[in-house]
Parts: sequence; C-alpha cells; structure tokens
Amino acid sequence: MNALSQRSSDTTPLIPVLAIVGLGLIGGSFAAALKAAGGAGRILGVGRQPDTLSRAQSLRLIDQAVTLEQALEQADVVMLATPVGAIRSLLETMQPLLRKDTIVTDAGSTKFDVVTAARAVLGSKLSQFVPGHPIAGAEQVGPESADANLFRDRNVVLTPLDETSDDALSRITAAWQLCGARVLNMAPDIHDTVLASVSHVPHFLSSVFMWQVATAEDSDLRLSLAGSGFRDFTRISAGSPEVWRDIFLANRTAVLTELDQVRHALTQAEQALQAGDGPALLDFLERAALARRFWGSRSGLS
Amino acid sequence: MNALSQRSSDTTPLIPVLAIVGLGLIGGSFAAALKAAGGAGRILGVGRQPDTLSRAQSLRLIDQAVTLEQALEQADVVMLATPVGAIRSLLETMQPLLRKDTIVTDAGSTKFDVVTAARAVLGSKLSQFVPGHPIAGAEQVGPESADANLFRDRNVVLTPLDETSDDALSRITAAWQLCGARVLNMAPDIHDTVLASVSHVPHFLSSVFMWQVATAEDSDLRLSLAGSGFRDFTRISAGSPEVWRDIFLANRTAVLTELDQVRHALTQAEQALQAGDGPALLDFLERAALARRFWGSRSGLS
Repeated sequence: MNALSQRSSDTTPLIPVLAIVGLGLIGGSFAAALKAAGGAGRILGVGRQPDTLSRAQSLRLIDQAVTLEQALEQADVVMLATPVGAIRSLLETMQPLLRKDTIVTDAGSTKFDVVTAARAVLGSKLSQFVPGHPIAGAEQVGPESADANLFRDRNVVLTPLDETSDDALSRITAAWQLCGARVLNMAPDIHDTVLASVSHVPHFLSSVFMWQVATAEDSDLRLSLAGSGFRDFTRISAGSPEVWRDIFLANRTAVLTELDQVRHALTQAEQALQAGDGPALLDFLERAALARRFWGSRSGLS
Repeated sequence: MNALSQRSSDTTPLIPVLAIVGLGLIGGSFAAALKAAGGAGRILGVGRQPDTLSRAQSLRLIDQAVTLEQALEQADVVMLATPVGAIRSLLETMQPLLRKDTIVTDAGSTKFDVVTAARAVLGSKLSQFVPGHPIAGAEQVGPESADANLFRDRNVVLTPLDETSDDALSRITAAWQLCGARVLNMAPDIHDTVLASVSHVPHFLSSVFMWQVATAEDSDLRLSLAGSGFRDFTRISAGSPEVWRDIFLANRTAVLTELDQVRHALTQAEQALQAGDGPALLDFLERAALARRFWGSRSGLS
C-alpha cells in the first residue's frame, strides 16, 4: 500500500513510530518539524551520549530515549542523523535486526560513500533504504539548536538506489514535504560533486582562513579589527569539527578536485593583482558580484 | 580652540557645515548618523553622478547638492567617502581651494596610499587632514543603503600624521563618537597589514570562489543546491566591484603577502585531506571552530 494513499484514508500519522539516531541540529529539527506537522506518532531517540538524549527529551523533541535495538523493534522509520562517518557501522549493527517493514533513511552530507556502504552491508534489505541529504544550516550544534522550520523551503536531495522500494521512497519524500522542504532526486555521485563545490569547499576555505588568522602572531590585533565581512565569511568555520572531518574524508576526491579548480582561479586573480591590472580585477569582481546578486535574488536565502 | 570645549560652551553643532563627497553606503550613513546625533548643521553633497545626489537629497541625507568648489567655500569638514582610488585626484583638486580652517577627512579602506598621496599633494595644508577608515559593512551600495546606526559599536581607525593638528584630530574623533563608533589611532602601514588579513583577503577569496562557481559548466545546478553556508561565505562578493578593485590595487603588497600565507595553510590542510589524515583534519577544524566561536562571543558581531 502506498504511504500517501494510506495516510489519506485514516488518521494514522505518516510515520506512527519514528526513531532518530543522533539528536543534533538535523535530527532534532526533523523531529520538531514532523511533530509540528503531525507526521509522526511516537518519536524515539537513539544516541551515544545520554546527556544529549535527556536534553532532547526535556526539549520534547523525542518521547523516549531507547537503545538502537529497542528502536528497531518498534520503529516504522529510522532516520540516521549522525555525522556521516558513523553511518556504515550503524548499518552493520542494524542489518540483522531490521524488520522487513522498517524504512531506513539518512541525512548524511555525502551520498556516494553512504550508498556504497549500504550496498555492501544491507544485502536483501537494501530496498528498505532511502539515502538523503537535507541542505540546511549546520553551524549550530546540539538539540537546543533544533528548529521546526529549519527545512522550510530548503532543498532535500534523495539519492534512491535502483533497489529502493517505491513505498519507502514515497514515504520519505512525503515526510520531508511535511517538513516544508522541496525534494529532489539525484544520482549520489552528482550530489557529491555539486555539494563539494557549493558546500564542502566553502567550509574548507573558511576554516583554513580562520585557522590562519587565529594562528598568526598578531592574531589578537587582527581579530579586534575584524568586521561584518569577516563575520559572514568565517561563520561556517564554527561548525562541528567532527561532522566536517567526516564530510571531507567521505568526499575527499571531489573536494580535492574542486579545490584545484579554486586554486586555478585564485592564481589567475592573483596574477592580475600582481600585475596591477585594474581592468582584469574589475572584470572578475564584477562577474562575481553580479552572479552573487542574481543568486541572492532568486534563492530566497539572502 | 578645541572642538569639544567649543561644543560644550554653546549650541553650535560640532560640524556647522559638513560636505560629503560620495553618497554611497559610508558617506550616506555618516550623514544620517551625524544628523541623527545633532552633530552636523547643514550637510552638502558632492558627487560625479547627479542621479545619486538627487536620491541622497530625496532621502534627506543631504540638504543640498553642490560642486566640490562650492563645498570648499562653505564646509567646516569635508568627508571623502569615495572609492579609495579617487582620493588622490580629489586632494589635488582641493589643495589650492582649501581654506585654512577646513578639516579634510576620508573613509578610504586603505590608509598608507591615502597618507602618501596627502603628503605628496597637500603641502602646507597637511595639518588639516585626518585619514580614517570606518570598519563597517560594505556589500550594499547606493544612498538607499544608508543607515544612521551603521557605525554604532563599530571600530573607526584614524591614522593621523605627525603634522595633523590636534584640533582636526579631536573634531573628527568626536564626530565618529557621535555616530556611536569606537575610535582607535594606528599607524597607516599597520592598519593596512591588519585589514589585508581580516577584510581584503576574505573579499578576494569569496569573490574568486563565487567567480569559479558561476563560470563552471554546471553552474545552474550548483547554484540551485547552494545553501546557507554558501550564502554567508559569498555574501561579501556582492560588494561594489569598483570599490574593491581600488582597495586591492591600493593594498596590493599586503594582500599578496597575506594570500601567500593563506595558500600555505591551504596546502597543509589539503595534504592532510589527501593523506586521509583524520586527526590532522580534526585538529585544524577544531582550532578554526574554537577561534571563531570565541571571536563571535566577544565581537558583538555574531
């Protein structure tokens, strides 16, 4: 039975029992958004840190903290919202315990490695897995940052496998739509290449820059004169180091390829500056400014 | 007579007649802030583009649009708020017309070149010049972006010359303080080195990155999946191309030196990624994140 037709025929929520593994910004916001939309009945929380789980429970993001094993006994959908480096070993632990009618999805920031791990680990249960990535802010950490509106008008990319069942895909699609998101389907390697460019490389550059300023001998003086441009440019570097280490390692090849492209562009721009070539500098600055203003006016993000 | 003691002894505003050359974000906000604080009597506007001046007048930022010559006949203080590349030729035009009791100041984003130009051009009138730089947002353009609160709790760096008169320095200091700013004095070369690091290099990198993404073959797909991290990282690249071309050319040596340092840090981080060295990646990401969070909690900017 299709998830959507089932839902319209009675008052059972889209996901009667939802288990979320990892109650950070993404996991917590998914819980909050689905609860607000009436898309989840009971919400179970799973995590390594008891403190995080009890804060998530105090914040009413989850109804109960349980073990992974308990979650797999009850859940209709399991959302893996951990750093992407933890997903493979989670799938390995889950595989033998996974009931036939349980759907597993994830929110990992890279998809090719997750799909590869799922293919290697899940065996006959591969059809129950829907790989996904909500493209939403990540510099806040912890359940306190959860926001029921985090995904509203944001893109969520799903990278279903050929084996993924239609029912699983349509139910996860419907869940994200209930959170207010736009859902796109895409091949995992395309997702990773595009995200390397517009998400991973900016984070890498912002962090390298912040690190360079903070380790300079006169860093106190520098930081005392840093203004709003610095603030915006470095904001993402405050994000979770563990999350981003995992992303960079998981998407290493695409990130290094994109960084090469940026270095090439940087060299061109530096050569124009070295030569004092005002028209060439103006040309590249104008192209950047026009592209950014056009994107800003269309993205709904700025 | 000292500007501050004069002010406390009667109801004459700090600057009876203020002329502003260049009615963009900075010039317009200086007008709005001083007017709101009662620090300026009449405000005259000077600029190359009649349309900008008439918009500034409609917005009540200026009382009257005048020529530079007319401004110099009347003004007690002349604020040069043009792109930094225009300042030398403005000083050349102004020098023979400058009355003895007129103070000239500027808001140029680089200071060594402005000081060098002033020294070369102003001759015996050098004591009337107070070089300055308000460190405040610059990605908006035009008089419509003017904001009376733009400088509130922001730093303004003045780089007075040995020749700068105490009266001129104290009056410009008082004017910025009326705008709500913190005023710091600094040598021009130190200012330029520090700003190369925390302002010019971020703008250069942000613009290079935006340019690289926008000129990629699949730029539409990339930009359709760009999220809030991309938004923040690229925000400054929307700033005025002319303003930033001038800044980069004026501060070329310091910017290129800093870019070398960033490249060096980038190479180290890339090598860690290439090697799949998780601990090294985590270490640099943690240093960046901690430094950014600490700065954010102290700067009042984030």
